[in-house]
Amino acid sequence: MILHLNNSISESEAQKIAAENQAFCFNNGKQFVLITSSSLKEVPEGLKSKITESWVFQNDNQLASREYIKHTREVDFGTFKIGGNTKNTVLIGGPCSVESESQIRESASFMAGLGLKLFRGGCYKPRTSPYSFQGLGLEGLQLLAKMREEFGMQVITEVRDATHVEEVIEYTDIIQVGAKAMYDQGILRACAKTQKPILIKRGFGTTLQEFVQSAEFVLSGGNPNVVLCERGIRTFETGTRFTLDLCGVAWLKKHTNLPVILDPSHAMGYAYGVADLARACTAMGIDGLLIESHPNPKVALSDASQQLNHSEFEALLTSLKPVANAVGYNMI
Amino acid sequence: MILHLNNSISESEAQKIAAENQAFCFNNGKQFVLITSSSLKEVPEGLKSKITESWVFQNDNQLASREYIKHTREVDFGTFKIGGNTKNTVLIGGPCSVESESQIRESASFMAGLGLKLFRGGCYKPRTSPYSFQGLGLEGLQLLAKMREEFGMQVITEVRDATHVEEVIEYTDIIQVGAKAMYDQGILRACAKTQKPILIKRGFGTTLQEFVQSAEFVLSGGNPNVVLCERGIRTFETGTRFTLDLCGVAWLKKHTNLPVILDPSHAMGYAYGVADLARACTAMGIDGLLIESHPNPKVALSDASQQLNHSEFEALLTSLKPVANAVGYNMI
Amino acid sequence: MILHLNNSISESEAQKIAAENQAFCFNNGKQFVLITSSSLKEVPEGLKSKITESWVFQNDNQLASREYIKHTREVDFGTFKIGGNTKNTVLIGGPCSVESESQIRESASFMAGLGLKLFRGGCYKPRTSPYSFQGLGLEGLQLLAKMREEFGMQVITEVRDATHVEEVIEYTDIIQVGAKAMYDQGILRACAKTQKPILIKRGFGTTLQEFVQSAEFVLSGGNPNVVLCERGIRTFETGTRFTLDLCGVAWLKKHTNLPVILDPSHAMGYAYGVADLARACTAMGIDGLLIESHPNPKVALSDASQQLNHSEFEALLTSLKPVANAVGYNMI
Amino acid sequence: MILHLNNSISESEAQKIAAENQAFCFNNGKQFVLITSSSLKEVPEGLKSKITESWVFQNDNQLASREYIKHTREVDFGTFKIGGNTKNTVLIGGPCSVESESQIRESASFMAGLGLKLFRGGCYKPRTSPYSFQGLGLEGLQLLAKMREEFGMQVITEVRDATHVEEVIEYTDIIQVGAKAMYDQGILRACAKTQKPILIKRGFGTTLQEFVQSAEFVLSGGNPNVVLCERGIRTFETGTRFTLDLCGVAWLKKHTNLPVILDPSHAMGYAYGVADLARACTAMGIDGLLIESHPNPKVALSDASQQLNHSEFEALLTSLKPVANAVGYNMI
Repeated sequence: MILHLNNSISESEAQKIAAENQAFCFNNGKQFVLITSSSLKEVPEGLKSKITESWVFQNDNQLASREYIKHTREVDFGTFKIGGNTKNTVLIGGPCSVESESQIRESASFMAGLGLKLFRGGCYKPRTSPYSFQGLGLEGLQLLAKMREEFGMQVITEVRDATHVEEVIEYTDIIQVGAKAMYDQGILRACAKTQKPILIKRGFGTTLQEFVQSAEFVLSGGNPNVVLCERGIRTFETGTRFTLDLCGVAWLKKHTNLPVILDPSHAMGYAYGVADLARACTAMGIDGLLIESHPNPKVALSDASQQLNHSEFEALLTSLKPVANAVGYNMI
Repeated sequence: MILHLNNSISESEAQKIAAENQAFCFNNGKQFVLITSSSLKEVPEGLKSKITESWVFQNDNQLASREYIKHTREVDFGTFKIGGNTKNTVLIGGPCSVESESQIRESASFMAGLGLKLFRGGCYKPRTSPYSFQGLGLEGLQLLAKMREEFGMQVITEVRDATHVEEVIEYTDIIQVGAKAMYDQGILRACAKTQKPILIKRGFGTTLQEFVQSAEFVLSGGNPNVVLCERGIRTFETGTRFTLDLCGVAWLKKHTNLPVILDPSHAMGYAYGVADLARACTAMGIDGLLIESHPNPKVALSDASQQLNHSEFEALLTSLKPVANAVGYNMI
Repeated sequence: MILHLNNSISESEAQKIAAENQAFCFNNGKQFVLITSSSLKEVPEGLKSKITESWVFQNDNQLASREYIKHTREVDFGTFKIGGNTKNTVLIGGPCSVESESQIRESASFMAGLGLKLFRGGCYKPRTSPYSFQGLGLEGLQLLAKMREEFGMQVITEVRDATHVEEVIEYTDIIQVGAKAMYDQGILRACAKTQKPILIKRGFGTTLQEFVQSAEFVLSGGNPNVVLCERGIRTFETGTRFTLDLCGVAWLKKHTNLPVILDPSHAMGYAYGVADLARACTAMGIDGLLIESHPNPKVALSDASQQLNHSEFEALLTSLKPVANAVGYNMI
Repeated sequence: MILHLNNSISESEAQKIAAENQAFCFNNGKQFVLITSSSLKEVPEGLKSKITESWVFQNDNQLASREYIKHTREVDFGTFKIGGNTKNTVLIGGPCSVESESQIRESASFMAGLGLKLFRGGCYKPRTSPYSFQGLGLEGLQLLAKMREEFGMQVITEVRDATHVEEVIEYTDIIQVGAKAMYDQGILRACAKTQKPILIKRGFGTTLQEFVQSAEFVLSGGNPNVVLCERGIRTFETGTRFTLDLCGVAWLKKHTNLPVILDPSHAMGYAYGVADLARACTAMGIDGLLIESHPNPKVALSDASQQLNHSEFEALLTSLKPVANAVGYNMI
């Protein structure tokens, strides 16, 4: 249950009420908000005089739900916004991994030249084998920050585990919680304490309900700036790397108030299908698109098969704009 | 292996060669074609002088493969064509089931009024329970044929099992092999003997490779007019009815020469997501779209939750045309 | 809903009542039984005086349900029984396919020598490619019948599609409805008209609920002798051919009254794991086990990798008996 | 590639060689061991004189593979051993969560009374919702340690994320890496630095290959005491909570040298199937079994539906012993 407290209630009183009701409590800029388990179906007698509004839910999709906020949240990325009434579809480009200063500058320079506003690059790679390239770590973060200074794009990178979450929050503009880490409470609780936008990727074995509940960890901790990212689920089909779940995207648009960004690169796993899929995603009317592109995919240290080269990326962008326009969106 | 025989070889000789090599044999209009298992990797010595061309394959995706025919096949539906150079995306509309003469006429009249060329309606419903509505059977086929006469649209309906495949071939213009029947050799072999277009739906537990091999049953029997239909696979996600596999569609476009039609209605299972998904499908540059629509979905005898009503269907069609145009296709 | 009619009601009257209530009707040896959709929750007023007992269900698992019959049905295989109070676990052995008279005799002779009561061999192989060995068809059925005469074992073989279901019913003692055919109403309705035991294999993409509903097609048509067979479902894991669903077996034992037979050979897909899995299955307290074994697996025309050779099969049988005894069952 | 260095090589020299070859390095008690990526297929020229033995692998299942160590590793749990030649199947019992001192003492007292050697209880619960009970944290760890003192059983609990991994290593005898955390490199690398046994649970969306690679993170860091735990994968079937993958267990026994423990409680999700599944697991000849049991399951704060009560647990243990004996194992 969500309860909005009267404006007259002080922070210390709000915290006291929260503790008594085993509730989370934060200030949404207008009032204090309490959230309890969704199993609570009636406003406790003692609280009735202290609240202005309350919402009951069937399950723990509460702060993220379309019942609580009836439109898509607006999330401010600093130099641009998505969601709300913006009708923006932001294209996020960049390589799978930050590999070296020259590689990341070549990529950043190209992406900035195309007008991109948000640049990606992995620093802590969540590889499934200890014998693969694991990313440059802190050095990568510093290189990303340098690219932001040089080219004026916002940057996003992934947190692999809780040991370096504070570093990522410090160095990047948007924090990506990866598909393998999205149940990680150490990460989610740290992300709840900043106000920077958090992009949570759906785990490849994660239900839509669990995906939204992962966002609830951040939202209930007081950070309202959460964006969901569908990147393919694991199914019996192995002809492609994963299966992009656009039915799930329709579900998220119906049942949640969070902006949705899609990552067809990881879903497909092969460069050949990425452009077709990116156009399909765009036609759904979404808030963003995350596409991996490398100056020279053949020598990439990770995800070599699925990254577009720069000319493919530019051609893709050209083809996406009319599709976005056809559904009333702007590709930025 | 596929082998094209010399034009000088007679039908009886071709059949003799086929029998000696445990091969399928048919005439493709230009020459006799032999197909053996893909495990045959070299042209048998005795055949070298009798062939004009041969193709070796890694697996049993042979006649359907992009290696054999390097573009999408053109399939003639009588009053229109798809595939080849047509750049047509055909919209197939109609109810899940033929329920009565008045219901099916109301639907057909509406669809014809919108300019649709291909009309659907189920007569033999492959229900998973014996206690559900099973379709009108032959009576339904006759009603569909009547609608064709009255409204000039082509009609398509589904074969449930081999006991009535001949009836369906007789009464309809396009034969649909349903998701639960696509391994059925009784059906596939019967479909191989006609020249009418065959639309094969992917089973919800079927790999892409098996899906294509299902088409090979029809193609190797001499019917070149096969169209594939992706309609959602079964995954761990149950928030939606199935998971539409657009990564798989990218794979089919890359690896096969068959036109691809998509069915977002069955994938989603809920009317609310069908329009968004239909736009996504269209943006992939596909050969057709199959959308269930009922004059009054609430009283439909099957699939009530996923059928659009007529005004939703009309609004969808309006929105699809600019998306098709944005990717260089015509919605017909 | 299931209704037991008064004994005084004649067959013609029962059929009339069934038609009026859109119900299935058969005689279970004691009385006429009506079955309607499970959506009927109250006995119709006009029927109250004509029935002795009625059962209401949450879903279409009705005749097969543990609510209707509170123990596992006894099914008579002619020379032995399973289910009921028998505590028998029947071991079914034999090759994947009947390949030749000498091969099938060598196999049958060996299996009979071990004391096996039920012998398997495929005649109509449901291959996913037209270019693979498709089975000997009718000739295979006749060879199986010959083995029955020579060695005194019951025989079981699979129906691939509805075109030959009558032949299989004629020639074999138990009719197997394969995993790819278990939605096929042409087959299921034919199986409902005989009284021979029907073994239905779960489709690899089939839910437990759908699996049981497949049995309801046979049961509601008047054949009470249905046995379920779990043989592995398709999941994301491809290190093994399929994933044997023993959680599902626990579900079936809890929710249905049908005997359950397990097929670890198809689930595993590799001979090396079959013995361990067979022991696991046996320890669940089940009604039967289906194991593929070939005189010389390396030259088998189908499923070569998963068939045990004869010495492996014999060693397996020896190891299974103490496991069966440990859980109070007899391996026959 | 794995390389065993000559005994004459000093630690500093071994570390130097490792750095030059981008290899992991540890001392296995007999010699220094180097491990590189499996993509290295030939011993580098300069190393040939410095090694005694080398192994080449097809994939990154290296230290865990059956090619490297041809039997199941023996792992010492302090008061007992599993694997090796022990033929022990250890039964691990206890509640899902440590809820209070009285609850955990009641449980520990009962389990110790049955002779159990290893006791479980969750302290950091990896709940998917922030609004559920999250465990007692450090207080729970201290209670578990107290139970070890009082009852003389070893204790095991789960790490949820990297923020508290050091605490768990300090307080418990065996460290469990949960299904949602098994890709977490922060946890895995910390576990590599201790010599305490590490039980890694398979993620419910994790392939067998990835599962083994997770163990490689610990093994390559120098901790040889890794045990794998299968606990059910997520499939399309929702009648049960997960699908226990015993085919996968057969694969692990064939392809790895690590002991395998099974957790049927989480797989099934319902108490009714746990006993049957536990007997099935035991009949596979495994190294351990993890069963959740609560003094009063109805009031459990987590996993209420799947925990056995104490009398069910005792009856299960009684039934497991003869099954273990039937396959040559001892239930301890």
